[in-house]
Amino acid sequence: MTNKKFTVLGGDLRSVKLANLISADGNKVNIYGFKNAGFELGLEESPNLELAINQSDIVIGPLPCSNDNEIINAPFCPDKIYIKDVFKAMTKNQIFIAGRISKKIQHAASVYSVYSVDLLDREEMAVLNAVPTAEGAIQIAMEEMPITLHNSNVLILGFGRIGKILAKMLLGIGSNVYVAARKYSDLAWIKGYGYNAVHINEIGNSLENMDVIFNTIPHVILDINMLQKVKKDSLIIDLASKPGGVDFEKAKDMGIKTIWALSLPGKVAPVTAAEFMKDTIYNIINELGV
Amino acid sequence: MTNKKFTVLGGDLRSVKLANLISADGNKVNIYGFKNAGFELGLEESPNLELAINQSDIVIGPLPCSNDNEIINAPFCPDKIYIKDVFKAMTKNQIFIAGRISKKIQHAASVYSVYSVDLLDREEMAVLNAVPTAEGAIQIAMEEMPITLHNSNVLILGFGRIGKILAKMLLGIGSNVYVAARKYSDLAWIKGYGYNAVHINEIGNSLENMDVIFNTIPHVILDINMLQKVKKDSLIIDLASKPGGVDFEKAKDMGIKTIWALSLPGKVAPVTAAEFMKDTIYNIINELGV
Amino acid sequence: MTNKKFTVLGGDLRSVKLANLISADGNKVNIYGFKNAGFELGLEESPNLELAINQSDIVIGPLPCSNDNEIINAPFCPDKIYIKDVFKAMTKNQIFIAGRISKKIQHAASVYSVYSVDLLDREEMAVLNAVPTAEGAIQIAMEEMPITLHNSNVLILGFGRIGKILAKMLLGIGSNVYVAARKYSDLAWIKGYGYNAVHINEIGNSLENMDVIFNTIPHVILDINMLQKVKKDSLIIDLASKPGGVDFEKAKDMGIKTIWALSLPGKVAPVTAAEFMKDTIYNIINELGV
Amino acid sequence: MTNKKFTVLGGDLRSVKLANLISADGNKVNIYGFKNAGFELGLEESPNLELAINQSDIVIGPLPCSNDNEIINAPFCPDKIYIKDVFKAMTKNQIFIAGRISKKIQHAASVYSVYSVDLLDREEMAVLNAVPTAEGAIQIAMEEMPITLHNSNVLILGFGRIGKILAKMLLGIGSNVYVAARKYSDLAWIKGYGYNAVHINEIGNSLENMDVIFNTIPHVILDINMLQKVKKDSLIIDLASKPGGVDFEKAKDMGIKTIWALSLPGKVAPVTAAEFMKDTIYNIINELGV
Repeated sequence: MTNKKFTVLGGDLRSVKLANLISADGNKVNIYGFKNAGFELGLEESPNLELAINQSDIVIGPLPCSNDNEIINAPFCPDKIYIKDVFKAMTKNQIFIAGRISKKIQHAASVYSVYSVDLLDREEMAVLNAVPTAEGAIQIAMEEMPITLHNSNVLILGFGRIGKILAKMLLGIGSNVYVAARKYSDLAWIKGYGYNAVHINEIGNSLENMDVIFNTIPHVILDINMLQKVKKDSLIIDLASKPGGVDFEKAKDMGIKTIWALSLPGKVAPVTAAEFMKDTIYNIINELGV
Repeated sequence: MTNKKFTVLGGDLRSVKLANLISADGNKVNIYGFKNAGFELGLEESPNLELAINQSDIVIGPLPCSNDNEIINAPFCPDKIYIKDVFKAMTKNQIFIAGRISKKIQHAASVYSVYSVDLLDREEMAVLNAVPTAEGAIQIAMEEMPITLHNSNVLILGFGRIGKILAKMLLGIGSNVYVAARKYSDLAWIKGYGYNAVHINEIGNSLENMDVIFNTIPHVILDINMLQKVKKDSLIIDLASKPGGVDFEKAKDMGIKTIWALSLPGKVAPVTAAEFMKDTIYNIINELGV
Repeated sequence: MTNKKFTVLGGDLRSVKLANLISADGNKVNIYGFKNAGFELGLEESPNLELAINQSDIVIGPLPCSNDNEIINAPFCPDKIYIKDVFKAMTKNQIFIAGRISKKIQHAASVYSVYSVDLLDREEMAVLNAVPTAEGAIQIAMEEMPITLHNSNVLILGFGRIGKILAKMLLGIGSNVYVAARKYSDLAWIKGYGYNAVHINEIGNSLENMDVIFNTIPHVILDINMLQKVKKDSLIIDLASKPGGVDFEKAKDMGIKTIWALSLPGKVAPVTAAEFMKDTIYNIINELGV
Repeated sequence: MTNKKFTVLGGDLRSVKLANLISADGNKVNIYGFKNAGFELGLEESPNLELAINQSDIVIGPLPCSNDNEIINAPFCPDKIYIKDVFKAMTKNQIFIAGRISKKIQHAASVYSVYSVDLLDREEMAVLNAVPTAEGAIQIAMEEMPITLHNSNVLILGFGRIGKILAKMLLGIGSNVYVAARKYSDLAWIKGYGYNAVHINEIGNSLENMDVIFNTIPHVILDINMLQKVKKDSLIIDLASKPGGVDFEKAKDMGIKTIWALSLPGKVAPVTAAEFMKDTIYNIINELGV
């Protein structure tokens, strides 16, 4: 219980789950933008936007907030919900929380004097999301590989949030885990956690022994030179956002199976993703002391 | 290198991989029964059964050896290979190794004075196979659940080979692992390995908190009474051979998702399965001192 | 709570803790044989043996029960407690539970029609005790080695109860764990758990790279031939009961540090050892249905 | 091999080991300041300071460099080695590397135009040192506690370098690990790694259940109010530098066993500590491209 009233506006399955989780904690929750969901929502849709927003303390938009900076991302809604209309209906004492609030949307919020917080700016949200991302990557590897991850040689490029959790889980399954990084302190951490440390400039020597390579670095590491050293029957799973870390075309030409897997949390574990959104929203409320 | 000559007869993708692995170790390998494989075999098919068997020391049949006790299980072979014909072509100094050699096949072997060894009678083979079985079970759970295994409550029924490896991997991924067993010494092991121990007679109290239940016990544990205590949105994965450990019909009636997953090694990790077959075959040769 | 009345007779610190633990569960507990303990017992000593035994259901002797088959092992007792007198005072409906009940003591029990159970015959007790044994061994290694266990090469000889728990803990600390065993199925388990498997006949090739060697096999494995292959600055910790697994004299001559560490649970974790005794005693009561 | 010439000046056992390790890599190493070592050094001491420094590229001082900012910390040296004299003997092309180079020493270096690098300013050194620190803390806990760490409740205050490695090792041994931190992102990491997360403001509720508490935060967290909630028989191990995280006097008054354990790497694992110094020195050379 937070003693707050919430409105959940649009979004996909995660938003539905989020609304239910917040409600299950004993909070009052309005929802709007799910008329076409076609499954049991667990909560009753508000008759219109104004009523939905009215009297709530926190208005929760989707993740991502919008695809065009104008309309709320609401796949289950037959009508368009304009961001402008949302902000118009909000008062100064309400807070708008959503994911990936662009500069444009932020500007609109300030025009209407709406206080907004981006979930993706929250470090804990990014950390928490590394868990379903890592599991999703493991699931893909299990599905695609004709060998077990146990006793496979796996190379993780990058030791950021996803690299750290992925390495831990793969070691737990029994893989021989190699992690490549550039900074000496990261290499020290990699050794400290019991993985094999590889300097990013020296991955060339390791590539030929790897059964699966997970990339988490968002610039092209596996270029044509590196791809030539990769075993032909190994699998590359790229988890990095654009432009990714692999020269995908060259990989294809060379017959190396490459999968670019993005936005895994919402896909492989929507309920867990919703829980992490909830936790982060509560943290925001807690910090604001509202 | 073993200094032996091998013949691989029939079987599925695992047998093809097995032949290649044994050959890659520097051994002479004949293959027969893969004419319709439709992919690059890596080895040349012998022109006929007699030539295939002739001059080899070890004849390796498929896993399972046969589905009807008469014909070798050879899905890639357009013709029927009769077990009787295989045994007829073999001499006393050759060894026949295959999986699931039934009483009937054993009898036929003795009639033709063929020395046969069942791969599935080998304890190390069963242990090794627990690894791909556990990974396959985890893959299914990841695919089916809308939450991460990390931080999920998982209950494993039985602490035999599969239970042991599955518990280890799930802990490595970050699940809250509960294992149910009957013997006090098993419960002591479960605690010693850091899992939560539950006496099999007291699982009723734990069921309602479980997100996923893996059964490894080959008789019905999750009967109607127990199923009534299971969370409606939890997942049951049954890894036990017939009759399985779940009253599947009742589970269906109650809307509890239940998956009976058998023969996982060959399905999820055929290459690893082939490696384990090879290791076990080498162990057999080693022990026989042939 | 067990609804039983207990008498704890003699023994060391573990017996004192055991009495307190059983009492803390709400059971009536008499104690006898601790007059010289010199610390707060938490319970009042019975005035004499007969009163102590009288009216209790379970009489708990020490671990080990006796050093000479005649007198109860009671280091805190100024007087001798004769086993014969204990048995004489007991009735048919009482049960005598203690550790290491020799043939002679068993015979005496039967003469007096006393039903006796040896704690050390209980598989779960042996499993549970592997935990403090492994921790004690790790403590010794940490104390004696000028390097960290993390990233050390450690070899465990034998994959029984102690070997299994020790391997798990050392991997958890970050050692490079090698385990030697003879049976192919044990070697399969070793691989399945993610350790490096070494056939016991081939340890010679591994010895020179090991920083510490833990032996759990109760016959001489590290004889003069093997010792010659051991690094001069490595440490050998022998956990095996007589005759141990090391030629201690030869090791000494060769300047290899060797520690024979026995009875670790009572030494390094007496309170945990007492808890395990309690759990096992409750299991015994439970099984007997008394 | 680094193609550099080294001089190791003063220091304790770690400096001796360091000199040997660098030499074992094929480098030329002079040593000075170990005349009274009383054990086999493995290298020959230079006849005087100037000769020792002369012709070397890298001059390695001890860790810590000095206790009074004037004299090199050289416990095995019968004479005083003045830092000023070291710097005077050095040329512009040489590099001085040591641990804890104070402002005063830094100033002296600049006066003599000596380029100096402090090992303790290197992030990878701090990370690497967390490993022997964590092992040392575990060793102390094992020595002091009458229960096993396995299945104990342990609380770690702080999730910095030491907290992270300590948590990992304790989980590996089988403890129930609780970690307290303040930042939501740290709490997310703690959950992600599979430990129980406790907000630092709420440790009061957890203290009474803890068997051992490790502090890594260098200001007083366990003040009188918190100490009152600690179990009387629990153990507190403080790993934080001055002023530490415990009100030691109050803890003593209240009969709570508290151990302030500092500088563990050099004490519990001098050889490993020397290896880490070597790795870091090589990294420095590598980065400087000298």
